[in-house]
Amino acid sequence: MTTGSAGFTAPEMMAMEHALLLAGQGVRGANPLVGAVVLDRDGAMVATGFHLGAGTDHAEVAALKSAALQGVDPAGCTMVVTLEPCNHTGRTGPCTEAIMEAGITRVVYAAADPTPDAAGGAARLANHGIDVAGGLLEDAATELNRRWLVAVQARRPFVTVKVAQSLDAQSAAADGSSQWITGPHARADGHTIRARVDAVLVGTGTVLADNPRLTARALDGSDASRQPLRVAVGLRGIPGDAAVRGSGFVHLETRDPLAVLTELFSRGVRHVLVEGGPQLVGVFLMADLADELFAYVAPMLLGAGVPAFQRLGVATLTDAHVWRLDPDGAAGLTQLGDDVRLHLKPIAPPPAPITKGL
Amino acid sequence: MTTGSAGFTAPEMMAMEHALLLAGQGVRGANPLVGAVVLDRDGAMVATGFHLGAGTDHAEVAALKSAALQGVDPAGCTMVVTLEPCNHTGRTGPCTEAIMEAGITRVVYAAADPTPDAAGGAARLANHGIDVAGGLLEDAATELNRRWLVAVQARRPFVTVKVAQSLDAQSAAADGSSQWITGPHARADGHTIRARVDAVLVGTGTVLADNPRLTARALDGSDASRQPLRVAVGLRGIPGDAAVRGSGFVHLETRDPLAVLTELFSRGVRHVLVEGGPQLVGVFLMADLADELFAYVAPMLLGAGVPAFQRLGVATLTDAHVWRLDPDGAAGLTQLGDDVRLHLKPIAPPPAPITKGL
Repeated sequence: MTTGSAGFTAPEMMAMEHALLLAGQGVRGANPLVGAVVLDRDGAMVATGFHLGAGTDHAEVAALKSAALQGVDPAGCTMVVTLEPCNHTGRTGPCTEAIMEAGITRVVYAAADPTPDAAGGAARLANHGIDVAGGLLEDAATELNRRWLVAVQARRPFVTVKVAQSLDAQSAAADGSSQWITGPHARADGHTIRARVDAVLVGTGTVLADNPRLTARALDGSDASRQPLRVAVGLRGIPGDAAVRGSGFVHLETRDPLAVLTELFSRGVRHVLVEGGPQLVGVFLMADLADELFAYVAPMLLGAGVPAFQRLGVATLTDAHVWRLDPDGAAGLTQLGDDVRLHLKPIAPPPAPITKGL
Repeated sequence: MTTGSAGFTAPEMMAMEHALLLAGQGVRGANPLVGAVVLDRDGAMVATGFHLGAGTDHAEVAALKSAALQGVDPAGCTMVVTLEPCNHTGRTGPCTEAIMEAGITRVVYAAADPTPDAAGGAARLANHGIDVAGGLLEDAATELNRRWLVAVQARRPFVTVKVAQSLDAQSAAADGSSQWITGPHARADGHTIRARVDAVLVGTGTVLADNPRLTARALDGSDASRQPLRVAVGLRGIPGDAAVRGSGFVHLETRDPLAVLTELFSRGVRHVLVEGGPQLVGVFLMADLADELFAYVAPMLLGAGVPAFQRLGVATLTDAHVWRLDPDGAAGLTQLGDDVRLHLKPIAPPPAPITKGL
């Protein structure tokens, strides 16, 4: 098995660059962003695929299916993929089996799979006689899924945080009214996120204030086919007639975000959506346990009310929590009706300012 | 002279729709957004133009120049324009003269010019024997420049407000540090706005806190060729060595935004940029004297600090100051480096919420 950047062909290099771009067409969550390209013996791209998100085909399988649809026989071809093929049967079968069955004779991957369950794919393929080479554009592939890797290694779910706010960052007006700051397009988008996570979290204060159902619903109000676990976090009691109660509801009586994630991970939850309120959001942000952030901003000014972000503990500009518009996994910047959605990923603290003068 | 929507041809109707779209390519400010289309005797579009902003050709002149460049003789053609042609020599000559000289035989316009100086164009053209018809798509043309019309009728400058803030709507961190929340692309964009306004306003508190120069500068720090009047507003004294001082600086010792605008109007100022601080911004918003808003949002969280918007006097959601992404005059939503720019125009208070349930 070749490792490092040596020993790769120019078509393999370009195919990996393409696979990384394809990977970004998926959505972040329980599974990493992965892209794959099938190259024929002449180095020509004959099929591509990417992973759309948990529960859907892995990138390698998507690429092989695409080849079949086009009548291309992948026997003797090279599979170029941004993550080491998995060796594990989860919601879908192991990619190693699919690759061997297809007659692929060489596999080039970027980053190794760090998950205990799925790792070992490269060795399995090599033992089968396939020429396997890892490490091509490894840094880019690792950066693509940096926060997912952090979560996997910590054995906790990937955490998506969602906030809906006015331009002046209020999540409710001074009298508490918050229905609705954002419009129907933004709210529908929020429901699509609920439908792809394993659990939706809110603070007990939000349960008491807004009495949400937390189900994933279509525009017509009907329930989505897949529903997340509904989780209330905090020490306050949940009324017996709360709308959130019922099958698939859990109340975790703690204020420790890591304890919440550990408990949910042990229940099989791999992707969590933190929906609020502002205090619960702040707790996850302060603990650096927010892996991505969807901020829905309505172009209105409330002047006062309930700040969407609270208790972040920033004293000076260089301590700010800095995020970046995420070019992968979903558009960084989107207009949804009259509202704006920012899809953000965390970055390290910013460098010191380099220019002066207003 | 025909008025109302009767008596217009289908090509004139479509040309006016096109002219309205063209008008939106300009920028808001001292002058209205205006578009123009030249139709030949067969009703075919042969030239178009729009007004780029104060100091540049009016739409009619731009369309006639475009016709000349293409070797088209506009004699006998119809001029379709979104605003009644002006009858006034400002920074550019009167459009009525240009239309008559070109031999245009029919003029179709949408909205009448409400400015005392420039009005009377339709009558002047009709007296010259040109067939003039107004009122085609008048509502759309009026809406396009609604806030500009409000300002003109009040004999005050058009007011652009600019804010730079974190996602949680802070314009400075808890210790007052604010250089820089937004990045170089956003700041350069702010300088292009300074270069096209007649005056830049800040509160005296901002002068004391940040000591800004308020000049319009290029990316390399050099001064733009056209500079706005620099205005400090408020009761506090300005230090003798303040960077803002010098030729082209005025200190208006008042806290009344309408008095500020009236004074500046009398000095010939037709477009004002209010740059802050938050209290001055709030004063203009509360008085409904903000005609457009550029909000530069950096994807960072400061948690506490100096709120970008203050004292807006909103108690409940239905009282919110509601804005809309402006499709005209500049893109509504723009990514500038790592930052986001929202270009907003005010709308009336929103209707009551029509849906319920979370």
